[in-house]
Amino acid sequence: MKPTLQILKLGGKLLEQEQLRAQALQGFITLPGHKILVHGGGNKASELLDQLGIAPKMINGRRITDDPTLDVVIMVYGGLINKKLVAQLQALGINALGLSGADANVIIAHKRPVKEIDYGWAGDIDQINPTTIQQLLQLGLCPVFCALTHDQKGQLLNTNADTIASSLATAMAPFFEVKLFLCFEKKGVLADPEDNNSIVPHLNPTSYREAKASGIISGGMIAKLDNAFHAIAQGVNQIVIGDPDSLKGIGGTSIRAK
Amino acid sequence: MKPTLQILKLGGKLLEQEQLRAQALQGFITLPGHKILVHGGGNKASELLDQLGIAPKMINGRRITDDPTLDVVIMVYGGLINKKLVAQLQALGINALGLSGADANVIIAHKRPVKEIDYGWAGDIDQINPTTIQQLLQLGLCPVFCALTHDQKGQLLNTNADTIASSLATAMAPFFEVKLFLCFEKKGVLADPEDNNSIVPHLNPTSYREAKASGIISGGMIAKLDNAFHAIAQGVNQIVIGDPDSLKGIGGTSIRAK
Repeated sequence: MKPTLQILKLGGKLLEQEQLRAQALQGFITLPGHKILVHGGGNKASELLDQLGIAPKMINGRRITDDPTLDVVIMVYGGLINKKLVAQLQALGINALGLSGADANVIIAHKRPVKEIDYGWAGDIDQINPTTIQQLLQLGLCPVFCALTHDQKGQLLNTNADTIASSLATAMAPFFEVKLFLCFEKKGVLADPEDNNSIVPHLNPTSYREAKASGIISGGMIAKLDNAFHAIAQGVNQIVIGDPDSLKGIGGTSIRAK
Repeated sequence: MKPTLQILKLGGKLLEQEQLRAQALQGFITLPGHKILVHGGGNKASELLDQLGIAPKMINGRRITDDPTLDVVIMVYGGLINKKLVAQLQALGINALGLSGADANVIIAHKRPVKEIDYGWAGDIDQINPTTIQQLLQLGLCPVFCALTHDQKGQLLNTNADTIASSLATAMAPFFEVKLFLCFEKKGVLADPEDNNSIVPHLNPTSYREAKASGIISGGMIAKLDNAFHAIAQGVNQIVIGDPDSLKGIGGTSIRAK
């Protein structure tokens, strides 16, 4: 039997609000066995861009990672949030190790090709290095990934944290029973976005298609779920979307292959 | 015979000027055997504080690391400079791994005790974890340390990069023949600060005392040299202070135990 690897992606308000973050980290440290944390940036990068007077460059509602934005993202994701999470986990007795994709060459990506839109320094993942990640886990370390990758030519790239989490889960699936938790402030995928108790308990490809058609699922949730269904199809054993309680099996939407 | 470990500390203008940094990294990658890079922050942290309108808090000419300054230092040292150096080394074929003292719990420190002055979140080193560093080296990784430590209680601390480099050299000396290079833009310790060719080729404790008494050595160089003489006394095999050419044995001031 393969050993278990539990991957937690922390996003949204869990990164911004101290109490929610503490609750999420408490849930994380009680997960048994090998563990990996992945974090996004919350609103911190936008705040810092604002403080620096850097106007956000948006096309069709999506942020373009130009040079100054990349520097801010490196500072906030790779520096401020990553190092503070590592220090907090160390205080909780977890031997955390912060990583960007450049560190130990763990995640190789390429700049997203320019079609209609040039997204700037946005990176699409080519390859994850599972051997190095296994070696770090075997040393008793808990990798903490920020949403940065590199192209092996010296360029850092901004990569969506959900995509990093799902890609890590997929890359580790041949070696581990992988459980992936995509955690944010809501209790799961909601049938009514205004009602935090209207949790959809599970989704399979068919019910997901229906939920999209009926408009229950829309916006940013679609990219998150597309990633999740891709990972389940690639051999990830379990994926749950929910708030920190879902780490304890309370609430959450379970993503199923069938 | 013990294996060799070469530690390079990059500081001053080597971090700020692209050409000098490239030259230093080129010198670094040609060093044979196990390698560690340590970097300071150059002027980047001051620049960002300035851009954010955070007034520097100084006492007796020394910067106090208050809360907003610590956040900036974490972003610049742990994020911007560290991740860019790691990505650049990866492009040069070195499997670099960025580390603060919190990552893998490698450097434990405590907040400097308040006597006349409260230096804020300045950290004095208690302990370096040589076993973990050895394990990372054995995986073929090249640790890249920024000037941050932690107190194991969740607090990150700002620690001088020269001190980190010397302390690392000392902690690794029981296991390796350690060579430490403290590199900046000058060719070495200079007899005449205005003349970059007036290199003092070597210093021992006696000549150092004389040079301090005659005023040849003053200011920030004293802290750097005090660290270096302490490390030599603790078993570090070789210490050279100079510009990137000193990595090739050209110029530089050699620090000797006798």
